[in-house]
Amino acid sequence: MASIDVYKQTAQTWFSELRDRICAELEAIETEISPDGAGRFVRTPWQRAEGGGGEMSVIKGKVFEKGGVNISTVHGEFSDVMRKEIPGASEDPRFWASGISLVIHPVSPLVPAVHMNTRMIVVGDGTKHWFGGGADLTPVVPVERDTQDFHAAFQRVCDAADPAYYAKFKKWCDEYFFLKHRNEARGIGGIFYDYVNTGEWGKDFAFTQEVGKALATIYPALVKRHMHETWDDEDRQRQLIKRGRYVEFNLLYDRGTRFGLMTGGNVEAILMSLPPVVHWG
Amino acid sequence: MASIDVYKQTAQTWFSELRDRICAELEAIETEISPDGAGRFVRTPWQRAEGGGGEMSVIKGKVFEKGGVNISTVHGEFSDVMRKEIPGASEDPRFWASGISLVIHPVSPLVPAVHMNTRMIVVGDGTKHWFGGGADLTPVVPVERDTQDFHAAFQRVCDAADPAYYAKFKKWCDEYFFLKHRNEARGIGGIFYDYVNTGEWGKDFAFTQEVGKALATIYPALVKRHMHETWDDEDRQRQLIKRGRYVEFNLLYDRGTRFGLMTGGNVEAILMSLPPVVHWG
Repeated sequence: MASIDVYKQTAQTWFSELRDRICAELEAIETEISPDGAGRFVRTPWQRAEGGGGEMSVIKGKVFEKGGVNISTVHGEFSDVMRKEIPGASEDPRFWASGISLVIHPVSPLVPAVHMNTRMIVVGDGTKHWFGGGADLTPVVPVERDTQDFHAAFQRVCDAADPAYYAKFKKWCDEYFFLKHRNEARGIGGIFYDYVNTGEWGKDFAFTQEVGKALATIYPALVKRHMHETWDDEDRQRQLIKRGRYVEFNLLYDRGTRFGLMTGGNVEAILMSLPPVVHWG
Repeated sequence: MASIDVYKQTAQTWFSELRDRICAELEAIETEISPDGAGRFVRTPWQRAEGGGGEMSVIKGKVFEKGGVNISTVHGEFSDVMRKEIPGASEDPRFWASGISLVIHPVSPLVPAVHMNTRMIVVGDGTKHWFGGGADLTPVVPVERDTQDFHAAFQRVCDAADPAYYAKFKKWCDEYFFLKHRNEARGIGGIFYDYVNTGEWGKDFAFTQEVGKALATIYPALVKRHMHETWDDEDRQRQLIKRGRYVEFNLLYDRGTRFGLMTGGNVEAILMSLPPVVHWG
């Protein structure tokens, strides 16, 4: 078996394991609140006509108003538009991509929403490949301790891999998750990275694994920190308006959302990221 | 005074008069439901740094959950991107634009939402100018009689102006208000037109006036037809999901919304079109 095939299989298996781990963590939190009637992830597999497919896991619970974790492994040929954008795709448009994508919208306005996505991409004959991904937190009203802890979790992961990563990936995140039309950040940021290939696949894979593990640790901690706090209608209203900003970002700017929808991706899996209830003033 | 200046002044005055007429019609409906605590349009003027401005009118009532009517008259120079898209703008990028834009999201899931927009555009030295606009209806569940009456209202206006208009403008509307990613129409359509300049300004202006008047007549009639009908939670839920499609269309596809937001337009006036409460499944 060629090493690239081992890499692909290993990465794909990891994204699935990470999905299981995160879903179990979040279900445990639901059980803590409501031992009997707890929200559970419901899994729905989907196929992609052009090759590959994935599985959505969606929870609608008492803590997590709507949470979605999607894994997918797809392959095919990049469209003409993408060939110009993806490194190496103009020479050989074949691609393989596997990843996990997660968006959680909690019931409580005091519990932050979160997004995480990590992926491995292979272009052409298998000599060109890289990891990409990131995680960012969107509280309704930022809490300084949460912000520090979230950033610290990902700084640890970055620093362990490369001293240059954190500054670069944090800045990339701040620049990416920004609503230009409102001159407003989507949330408090986190990290965002792409095209990571140091020449040592094992090292890059380990970094992407650690990003996933960091999310699986820090996010449940932040949820538990705030889930029992009381909130009122005003907090909820603020949350519903903030969620409108989330929708605006995803539909106006998000590369994955726009690209996926324009190219016949799985609509339900892509729009899993949209909040369940949203207000505009 | 050059004739183009008379045209501009006449069109601008009309859009303002039409705004007054429509707002009065809708307020009268609110008063019928709730003589004392009726919803009223609140007017907010806004200025555009590059030249011109407008006025938003927003109602939040018992019949109209959120209704917005915006008039604006702006002028300046088209950006590089727009110069390639707008006829004549590559030679002389100066423009003047005046128009009215309306979106109504009713409380009752049995009362359809509606959108109408008409505008006059002048490019360059004033020799190039045209009218554009249209109106389309978005019921949660289409009602055949409403659909027929709405289409008939605009067919009458089209047929009186030019026997070729209706087929062309109805098709244009169906093609434009379509969510490709869901393979689904936004609503039941209506008409959509642009670049109308027959060489007789008075005739083209009269057509645009009649489009506005048709909306001011047919929409209140449809509202009154359904506003007293009872509905349940299931109807409301269907409405909130349908509104999500409206948001998806406006943020993913609508030319005016995307163009306005990307080029520093008035965010509140542009996003006035978004429904007040929205659900995604």
